[in-house]
Amino acid sequence: MTIQPTDPLGRMYAEWTEEFIANPDMSLRLMRWLFEDWQRVTTEPSGVTYETTELGGVPGILVTPLTADPGQVLVFLHGGGFALGSSASHRKLAGHVAKACGTHAFVADFRRAPEHPFPAQLDDATAVFDALVDGGTDPADITFVGDSAGASIAIATTLRMLRDGRRTPGLVVTVSPWLDMENTGETLVTNDATDFLITREGLQGNIDRYLSGGADPTDPLVNPLYADFAGFPPLYVTASDVESLFSDATRLEALARAAGVDVTFDVAHGEQHVFPLQAGNLASADAGVAAIADWYRARRTANAHQHLTPSAV
Amino acid sequence: MTIQPTDPLGRMYAEWTEEFIANPDMSLRLMRWLFEDWQRVTTEPSGVTYETTELGGVPGILVTPLTADPGQVLVFLHGGGFALGSSASHRKLAGHVAKACGTHAFVADFRRAPEHPFPAQLDDATAVFDALVDGGTDPADITFVGDSAGASIAIATTLRMLRDGRRTPGLVVTVSPWLDMENTGETLVTNDATDFLITREGLQGNIDRYLSGGADPTDPLVNPLYADFAGFPPLYVTASDVESLFSDATRLEALARAAGVDVTFDVAHGEQHVFPLQAGNLASADAGVAAIADWYRARRTANAHQHLTPSAV
Repeated sequence: MTIQPTDPLGRMYAEWTEEFIANPDMSLRLMRWLFEDWQRVTTEPSGVTYETTELGGVPGILVTPLTADPGQVLVFLHGGGFALGSSASHRKLAGHVAKACGTHAFVADFRRAPEHPFPAQLDDATAVFDALVDGGTDPADITFVGDSAGASIAIATTLRMLRDGRRTPGLVVTVSPWLDMENTGETLVTNDATDFLITREGLQGNIDRYLSGGADPTDPLVNPLYADFAGFPPLYVTASDVESLFSDATRLEALARAAGVDVTFDVAHGEQHVFPLQAGNLASADAGVAAIADWYRARRTANAHQHLTPSAV
Repeated sequence: MTIQPTDPLGRMYAEWTEEFIANPDMSLRLMRWLFEDWQRVTTEPSGVTYETTELGGVPGILVTPLTADPGQVLVFLHGGGFALGSSASHRKLAGHVAKACGTHAFVADFRRAPEHPFPAQLDDATAVFDALVDGGTDPADITFVGDSAGASIAIATTLRMLRDGRRTPGLVVTVSPWLDMENTGETLVTNDATDFLITREGLQGNIDRYLSGGADPTDPLVNPLYADFAGFPPLYVTASDVESLFSDATRLEALARAAGVDVTFDVAHGEQHVFPLQAGNLASADAGVAAIADWYRARRTANAHQHLTPSAV
């Protein structure tokens, strides 16, 4: 029995897959145009303004909900296998999340592979972070948010900051994280029929592009499943139990928890890869965004109490 | 000597053309995804909010500059040969124009051909107009804005309202209008080398889709170059002297002027098809948007004086 998609994202992924099959030699350029239309499944969040700008030399879109706290910012690192996707594909999702959290967001157009292999993406995320800090934002008020390959960038950039003894973002949020550059993980097989986008072959193409500079797929900054998470900031993970990359999320949670990280794992059921992209169009996606915001606000409140009562600690 | 594009739009059109040549059997679906990325050449206009909504049953994006006059609205009818393009491809252009004019805009996702041939597009533009009027907007405060095939919809819908003795929009703005469904016009030949998107073959594909319901290419509502413009509201036309569809604009201007219409023709020089799409990225595109707004405000002021001093007339 063939499983049919029932949600907007699944239907779109199934359409993309049909085109990939019909056009086996599709150029990377055409594939990029196709992934730009990821934006289609997200509604426009009301009461949000945008500005095409740059931070630290990295182009992107500054997302400003009318109700945003001017001091808090999400650095949004989009998915697309390090090679696809952009600020345009993820602008509206960033708007929904920022509005729910009461923050600004900067959706970074980090340099993409293969023109710019690892670690250009980490360098760009760091440049955005540094520009915000240089502009007066407290690192604790910066949150890295990443979906799919963007989650790898969010985590690896934070790990590198820890390694270098630098301050890190206060919080890290990951959605459908993709981390395993060895392309293993049991759900690549067991969830193959229920995930309408991700295939091991497709992932390998993105791995080849990302590592075209010669990086090692077991380098902890390339593949955070090899990393030591000691000292990592509070981490939120959400992924769906039927997606091919679910075992990246479960392994991430176990690894972070074993290292004593404050990790929260919100398991979605029956959803497609990066299901919150359907914000405004699907109740479960809205719930996914709300859950991120609830976690964000709770951790912010907890941190504020820590800061306000240092003498009592 | 091959002429090379020098602006963002020309470079994008040249890339699209390369992909069309490499993929001669490109599906309409893939072509639609490609045209969605028209949005790429436009910056985000600052201080503008958006809402995914509908008017009169027609889905679209309501564009609200923070400084907009709540009573004035542009109904934005996007280009794409009646078959391609969307509210997503034209959202930012509508934002730039609305902000400059001090109005709201509704970017309509009218039904597209060939699934919905002529006159579905006119019906949808009319439904949006009627919903605005039913909601309390004075027809005089509604402006139709259309680029390329959207200009045909803007003009033909207004012509049909006139034919039916109904009230029309107060103003009509057209950018790089495409009107000739017989696919003639001397600049199709003379400007072929300097227009990096439009070809007679490409136009014919869109004509075939638009007229797949059996409409006559010389019907004045299908092809406004056969229409009587008597009584038409003030009309703004802009197009570039090097684009393949320039002779549609010159013929439109001559026809409207001969019928006594208050028509303004702003000829751009050396620009690509729908050059204002580059708003925020190219000075000449910003100038094109500013010229539309100057004309809009001047005509609004003139109309307001007429309304305020009826006894003096």
